[in-house]
Parts: sequence; C-alpha cells; structure tokens
Amino acid sequence: MKLVRYGAPGKEKPGLIDEDGRVRDLSGVVPDLGPQQLGQVGLARIRKANPAKLPLVRGTPRFGCPVNNVGKFVAIGLNFADHAAESGVAIPKEPVVFMKATSCIQGPNDPVMLPRGSVKTDWEVELGVVIGTTARYVPMNKALAHVAGYAIVNDVSEREFQLERGPQWDKGKGCDTFGPIGPWLVTADEIANVQRLDMWLDVNGQRMQTGNTRTMIFGVAKLVSYVSHFMTLQPGDVITTGTPPGVGLGMKPPKYLKKGDVMTLGIQGLGEQRQLVVPFKA
Amino acid sequence: MKLVRYGAPGKEKPGLIDEDGRVRDLSGVVPDLGPQQLGQVGLARIRKANPAKLPLVRGTPRFGCPVNNVGKFVAIGLNFADHAAESGVAIPKEPVVFMKATSCIQGPNDPVMLPRGSVKTDWEVELGVVIGTTARYVPMNKALAHVAGYAIVNDVSEREFQLERGPQWDKGKGCDTFGPIGPWLVTADEIANVQRLDMWLDVNGQRMQTGNTRTMIFGVAKLVSYVSHFMTLQPGDVITTGTPPGVGLGMKPPKYLKKGDVMTLGIQGLGEQRQLVVPFKA
Repeated sequence: MKLVRYGAPGKEKPGLIDEDGRVRDLSGVVPDLGPQQLGQVGLARIRKANPAKLPLVRGTPRFGCPVNNVGKFVAIGLNFADHAAESGVAIPKEPVVFMKATSCIQGPNDPVMLPRGSVKTDWEVELGVVIGTTARYVPMNKALAHVAGYAIVNDVSEREFQLERGPQWDKGKGCDTFGPIGPWLVTADEIANVQRLDMWLDVNGQRMQTGNTRTMIFGVAKLVSYVSHFMTLQPGDVITTGTPPGVGLGMKPPKYLKKGDVMTLGIQGLGEQRQLVVPFKA
Repeated sequence: MKLVRYGAPGKEKPGLIDEDGRVRDLSGVVPDLGPQQLGQVGLARIRKANPAKLPLVRGTPRFGCPVNNVGKFVAIGLNFADHAAESGVAIPKEPVVFMKATSCIQGPNDPVMLPRGSVKTDWEVELGVVIGTTARYVPMNKALAHVAGYAIVNDVSEREFQLERGPQWDKGKGCDTFGPIGPWLVTADEIANVQRLDMWLDVNGQRMQTGNTRTMIFGVAKLVSYVSHFMTLQPGDVITTGTPPGVGLGMKPPKYLKKGDVMTLGIQGLGEQRQLVVPFKA
C-alpha cells in the first residue's frame, strides 16, 4: 500500500493511493497514520479496506509527512562508499549515527527554508525506513520484520553549521524544514528488494545525484539491527539511511542552494518530492 | 512551583509539591504536564490553584519525568571549562550541540540500565532547561522568557559508544534509561539566578562531581538563544546544559559504572535524584 497524510499542515487526514493514483480518504478506517497504526494490527486493518469504496479525495491535496508523531529521526552518515569519498573521509567501519530534530519534519513538497545567514545549504536524497514495531537488540535476520515501510527523505544539511561550528553534526541537520518525508509511506510488502532501488536528485532540472541502494555500505537490515543496539526503536521512528554521491559539498568548487532553486528527487517505487528553496520565514 | 508527574510509568498524573514537601494531585486542574501546559496560560492556571485544597497524595509515589511528551532532548557538550580540560579537549568557541534520543527519558529515580556489552557507562549531573513557549531566533536578552523551568538531568553516557565507535556522540547518549529527568520541574520564577546553582553527584556515597552553574562557559540565556538559531525550540523541549568536572572518563585511570552502583545527584533548589545501576533488561 501507498499511504499518505493529506491536507493543510497540522490538519492532515490519513489516506491511500489507489490503483489509478488517486487519493482515497482513510479517516473512516483509522484516525491517523502514526505509531498506533504502523504495527501489524493497524496495517492489517487498513489492508482490509476496499480502496474502491473509500471516499475519493478531489483535486490535488498537499501531502504532509506520511507518519504523524515521529518520535525519533535517526540518521546514518557516510553510508555510500562514493559519497564518503566525495566528502573526503574514510569509509566508516561501522554505521555513523546522528539525529535530526523531529521539528524539521515536513511534507514532501513544502518549501525548504534557508536558515538565516546560511550560505551552505545542501541536498541529500535518502531512503527513509519507518519502524512499525518496537525493535530492541534485534538480530540482522529479524530486523526487516520491524519495518512498516519506506519513504523518501531529503536530508537537507547546512554544511557550515554541520562541519565548521564544532565537532557534532546535529546543528546543521535539524534546522526547520530540513526533513521533507514522503510523499508516500510504501509498506514493506510492496518493495521486493530494498537494496535494489534507484535514487536521484535534480536541482533546477539538472541531475545532481544518481545512486542505487545497492551501493549502501550498510544495508537496511544491518542499520535497523545496529541502531536497535544503542536505543530502542519505536513505532513511527524514522531512520534515514545515507545519501549517494552528488551533494553540493562534494563538487569542485562546492555548490549550494539559493533562493528560488527547486529540488526534485525520487526513489524507485517511492514516488517523488519537489521543494522550492525560500528564505527563512517564521 | 515545584511540579511533578507521579505514578506508574506511562500512567503518571500531574502534581505539585506543597509547602510541607507533600505531593498534591493536580489532575483536577490540568490533564498532564506537557507542551500544552508549560506556556504562560497553562502555568497561570496551575498557579491559581490553592495547594492546600488539592487532594493530598498518600505515601511516597514514584516520580516520572516532570514533562510529558518531550519533543526534542537537546544537549550541550563541554560547557564547563574544567570538564573540557578533564576530557582533554579545548574549550569550545561556541556551544557544542548534540541530541539525546527522547526514548531514553525516564523518571529521576528509575534504575539506569547498562547497555549490553557496556564497559564505559558514565555519569553527568546537568541542569535541564524546559522550554515553555516557542523560541525561534530569539536574542539572548529575551531567551529566558521562553523557559518554563528547570530540572535535574543525569546525562548518562556510554563513552565507548560515544567516542570510540565513530565521530558522532549520539550513539552513546541516547541508550534506554540514559535520560533521568526530575524529580521536579521548578518554575523559572523560583530560581533567583540560574547561574548560581550548586551541583553535585555521588557514586555509592562518594562525591564525584562538584560544580556550580556559575562556571558554565555558555550560560542558559546564551544556550536557549543559540540553539533557537539552528532549530525552533517548542514547548516541552529540554536542553541539558553540560556537566561540571568529575566524570568517570576524566579520572586516572577512568572509572565507570557497574551493576549495583548507586548514583545520587542534586542541584541547588531542584531536588535530588537516585539511580541504581542494573544490567539491561527488556
């Protein structure tokens, strides 16, 4: 299933995308798409509904993040060998884990705001993993059973804040609007092999990132297992799994986002995002 | 006011500590102590209640974290000059910001679990700042107006996970039970000068940390202002502001927590915490 949350910010309703690509309202089936609905019971309930009988949503609604109340937004750094190389750092021996502030989460097509004074805001198309059931010290061979589904994440990053303002990255990773997620939460059963998905990102129509989840250093099963050894993963938590080559930081000279730029990005089977870059506005 | 959340984990009720140190039930006044109650309106409503007329809570209930639904748990590293020195690093030019997973938050006296395989779990008494109203690009001279109050935080840290398993600290900072907060949320009006509070931490009755918020490199007003330039601070967010000298990592040789150890810690005006150290148990 392709699950969505549609409507105005803060007032999103649950929905699903039917066979014809139309939005169907799910609010008669579940109150929202959040931690309570992402387990096997919740998803089974949605699966029982006949999409053709759900109310059709007219027009082209805004999409919010397809998961409400994300508790933790865990991020993996330098998880593609080529991206580590373009960043000028060694391939990590084990996953690099940092965190994005949950307050940066927004819909897939909402504008991305340049923080005040920012001159190094950068893009990162990533595969987001949405946790469905509590995962704590799970072995790798059982890790994928804890995954509700997948969604595109743009791990927007301010490189000066991240890399030049102290040793820790989180300052440059969690700025408001730096976490577009969606458009869809694609349930895990729809993804035949999560390590065979094409990824791409354009800025103003020019291809910047091209990759495939095949070249991840640590795959999704490893990452879910690994992170679960450091903290309990809870339903609704999101792990964003690192970006392929082609970020602005890696260019010679580096190239960063400016007002008016448009990012478009996609992952095979997970849809597309589009964000206009705008100045910060409260 | 000294506000608490008391009762079994996940079933806490709001309360306050009366003049005689007894717990009074606040659940007839507010449904909980969370983001909705920490602004001026919410706190004014609680302030109107006459403690002597609130139901007395019998016995000695468990305390939970005095804030429910903490959205972000932001942490400041190396914020005491002496602690930076004992950690063998230079005094930071600007605040070092990292994040603790909100899933690590627990009551002030709940046991602290050693993660499986942990041999370097360490203590850190810290002043926690609880945000009351949305703070975004706030200047330093207006920052304290966004603070609802203060609480003790034990920023429990696994030094191997934090420092020897990659460049980012979050892996060693957000393990389950690594975020005891409380016992009380002391509203800001009760703290005459937040930069003049004694701090201490004992392990098995032996004094390990002695400090005072006077020796912070960056004070609370600066930290709230600073962090609000990187991410919007929301009601219920907690910033833990760094630890004074005396952590296990800084000893020669280093000394870490083991099963059966007891941490007791306190900050002037904010009460005390006590945690038994236990093996990990799901």
